[in-house]
Amino acid sequence: MLEELKEKVWQANLELPKHNLVTFTWGNASAIDREKGLFVIKPSGVPYEELKPEDMVVIDLEGNKVEGDLNPSSDTPTHVVLYREFETLGGIVHTHSTWATSWAQAGRDIPCYGTTHADYIYGPIPCVRNLTKEEIDEAYETNTGALIAEHFHSHNLDPDAVPGVLCKNHGVFTWGKSADKAVYNAVVFEECAKMAALTEMINPEVVPAPQELQDKHYYRKHGANAYYGQAPRK
Amino acid sequence: MLEELKEKVWQANLELPKHNLVTFTWGNASAIDREKGLFVIKPSGVPYEELKPEDMVVIDLEGNKVEGDLNPSSDTPTHVVLYREFETLGGIVHTHSTWATSWAQAGRDIPCYGTTHADYIYGPIPCVRNLTKEEIDEAYETNTGALIAEHFHSHNLDPDAVPGVLCKNHGVFTWGKSADKAVYNAVVFEECAKMAALTEMINPEVVPAPQELQDKHYYRKHGANAYYGQAPRK
Amino acid sequence: MLEELKEKVWQANLELPKHNLVTFTWGNASAIDREKGLFVIKPSGVPYEELKPEDMVVIDLEGNKVEGDLNPSSDTPTHVVLYREFETLGGIVHTHSTWATSWAQAGRDIPCYGTTHADYIYGPIPCVRNLTKEEIDEAYETNTGALIAEHFHSHNLDPDAVPGVLCKNHGVFTWGKSADKAVYNAVVFEECAKMAALTEMINPEVVPAPQELQDKHYYRKHGANAYYGQAPRK
Amino acid sequence: MLEELKEKVWQANLELPKHNLVTFTWGNASAIDREKGLFVIKPSGVPYEELKPEDMVVIDLEGNKVEGDLNPSSDTPTHVVLYREFETLGGIVHTHSTWATSWAQAGRDIPCYGTTHADYIYGPIPCVRNLTKEEIDEAYETNTGALIAEHFHSHNLDPDAVPGVLCKNHGVFTWGKSADKAVYNAVVFEECAKMAALTEMINPEVVPAPQELQDKHYYRKHGANAYYGQAPRK
Repeated sequence: MLEELKEKVWQANLELPKHNLVTFTWGNASAIDREKGLFVIKPSGVPYEELKPEDMVVIDLEGNKVEGDLNPSSDTPTHVVLYREFETLGGIVHTHSTWATSWAQAGRDIPCYGTTHADYIYGPIPCVRNLTKEEIDEAYETNTGALIAEHFHSHNLDPDAVPGVLCKNHGVFTWGKSADKAVYNAVVFEECAKMAALTEMINPEVVPAPQELQDKHYYRKHGANAYYGQAPRK
Repeated sequence: MLEELKEKVWQANLELPKHNLVTFTWGNASAIDREKGLFVIKPSGVPYEELKPEDMVVIDLEGNKVEGDLNPSSDTPTHVVLYREFETLGGIVHTHSTWATSWAQAGRDIPCYGTTHADYIYGPIPCVRNLTKEEIDEAYETNTGALIAEHFHSHNLDPDAVPGVLCKNHGVFTWGKSADKAVYNAVVFEECAKMAALTEMINPEVVPAPQELQDKHYYRKHGANAYYGQAPRK
Repeated sequence: MLEELKEKVWQANLELPKHNLVTFTWGNASAIDREKGLFVIKPSGVPYEELKPEDMVVIDLEGNKVEGDLNPSSDTPTHVVLYREFETLGGIVHTHSTWATSWAQAGRDIPCYGTTHADYIYGPIPCVRNLTKEEIDEAYETNTGALIAEHFHSHNLDPDAVPGVLCKNHGVFTWGKSADKAVYNAVVFEECAKMAALTEMINPEVVPAPQELQDKHYYRKHGANAYYGQAPRK
Repeated sequence: MLEELKEKVWQANLELPKHNLVTFTWGNASAIDREKGLFVIKPSGVPYEELKPEDMVVIDLEGNKVEGDLNPSSDTPTHVVLYREFETLGGIVHTHSTWATSWAQAGRDIPCYGTTHADYIYGPIPCVRNLTKEEIDEAYETNTGALIAEHFHSHNLDPDAVPGVLCKNHGVFTWGKSADKAVYNAVVFEECAKMAALTEMINPEVVPAPQELQDKHYYRKHGANAYYGQAPRK
């Protein structure tokens, strides 16, 4: 079942080490079939070079394994919550990519210092707080998803405009309309994280880019008046 | 038309990811035929691995598309202004290369700390201010070019001796006698940007290289008394 | 003798430059056959590209060469002590990998700033003191091993939970159940060292990850209740 | 003439970009035949991918071109002085490698923070002062060599124990018994420069490695009592 989606999720997972976002097995990608209410995710702890499309695991939105011989990624419950709470998501990626994870470890939002960031992300990249001991003990991975959703809802963040999040002392989740777009955003996050750190090293007094410049670049690429790129090409 | 120039511009665009100056589609290169008053530029948002020479778009110096099925780079109006204002330019490159863009985000000129910089660039690499909201709303890309030209004119900078510029909170433009030379200078800018940041990290009190050393290296490679390299080789 | 182990140790040594942990000959890997009480180690100063499995040297736990035409790694006496003192070790790796060695040169333990570290290492990565002049003169390499063992014993550190150590002003030793696992941990150490340094650069006031988060991640992967990865696969 | 030496110098030059020490044509390697009193050096400004062994230029110790169609490296007069002043040198390399050049731009000696440095270099890597305007105008490249030699003589530095130098605001020269060994030392310098900068970032209060540790590592590899590596192998 879902053979085509498995192939795409498998491809998306392979893209992660190619883009230097993942060491060993430290990451995972998934994608959802919204009609069927099922998503496909990487199995847990399997080296990328051994992965095959048929190893992908099928999960429903209650978190039950529907198909697959292997255990799904241990972060699967986080994916479940994100797919339920953010209904426009088609794919999700989790990594420990070096620079973005260093911001997560530093416990800071990544400010928008330039147009590379503004082209893809509206406003800072948020860093959510640590879970409490009670939240960890109760259901660590599920509560990670719940915390992200709660943060977005309470801060009025649109997951389409802010396509990812840092989890304090942990790592990065990014998402998009597909697994492919989630991988793309994982690359964007890592590059923006790196440049933001270097920017502060070069000028410790730096402030974020002017709002009008952020708006210009974001809306040059998104929404009704976008004019970047080509009209849909075949 | 301009088949040879298209081939060269296509090649120059492919050099950008090879030199790690560009992620995904975040850059563009163009080159001009001064006799015809036409330039060739990369189409907007097309992945580098899919680009073909015949995809290149031909533009006149009023900014009109003269040939091509695809939309030209969204930065095309900036190229138009630069070719008009700086008459010795044969090629232009725009990137968001990591270290140079970090200086742009930091809003600082890059000081000349050594001979690697002085070999190719006379004096600091300038960083131009942000456009105002009015300038952005009126004509963002055209006014980016106008701001660069105004900065060079008002600061008496020679675009042949200062072959590029940082745009605050945005990225880098470099140029040269050809698209190839513009790419070369994009590599020089990135390396000088990286070393300048590391230099300040190693010695926060550092001052620019002595003027006589800058002069020696610049004029060892440029002008009537240059003695670096070979007499023109076949 | 020990042909299979030689092959594995040879492979493990080749992995070191592949993971960018070793420049030229600046590293070594070994693995032990606990039943025979013999271990196999790389010869000293031989370029990795010239190494062959049969070049590996066999050493007993008194430090005597039992087989091999070449001199064993000059760090062999350190391996001897570690195998004797830490009885669960199956393999040991020594490198001068860039970021971990920079922490060693800085003379600091690497704090646990996140789950990438906590997934594999319980608590900070310790940095042992310099040997005294007397200890160096007496038996530098042997005393390096003795100092590491003494540090683990006196600080109640479990070498299975803290799979390596920094030696002040020198470099890194990591270990594991096999040479392969020791290489894996050398990669973990280098990545954690890099991210810890970047974390402090991004937030100089940062504190270690909460203990409950460290516990959660460590025990998600280790011990009786681990649920990361697959049940043993064939 | 000197066909074998040309081949070796050509090879050594090609090693420079392979080790990421050189961008474009920003470096050169040479080697000397002491009996004939002639050395072979890379031509000036020729891309590495176009270089052929027969392009190498032969120079005598007065700095005269003895053979070769191309202009020798513009740094040739510096090589002449170094070969004359330091009689044990067999090969010389000049680069603008990123981290070592950043120390040169910062105008600082590189302290010995660890055994990676002490294994190959006895004491700090010196950074010589800028030439005065008069020295530049008179004979820039020759006086660069003279300044290095004067610095080594006046500071009682042994060029065999300190196999290279930083030139303030410029770059790096390394040397050795052969062109190959000079390349090796250029790699060592770059790695030590990188780790020293990171060490200071991690611990701004750091002090150099204890002298007894530096001595132990240096003499473990050099001199009558060395025991690293193999007895000469065939």
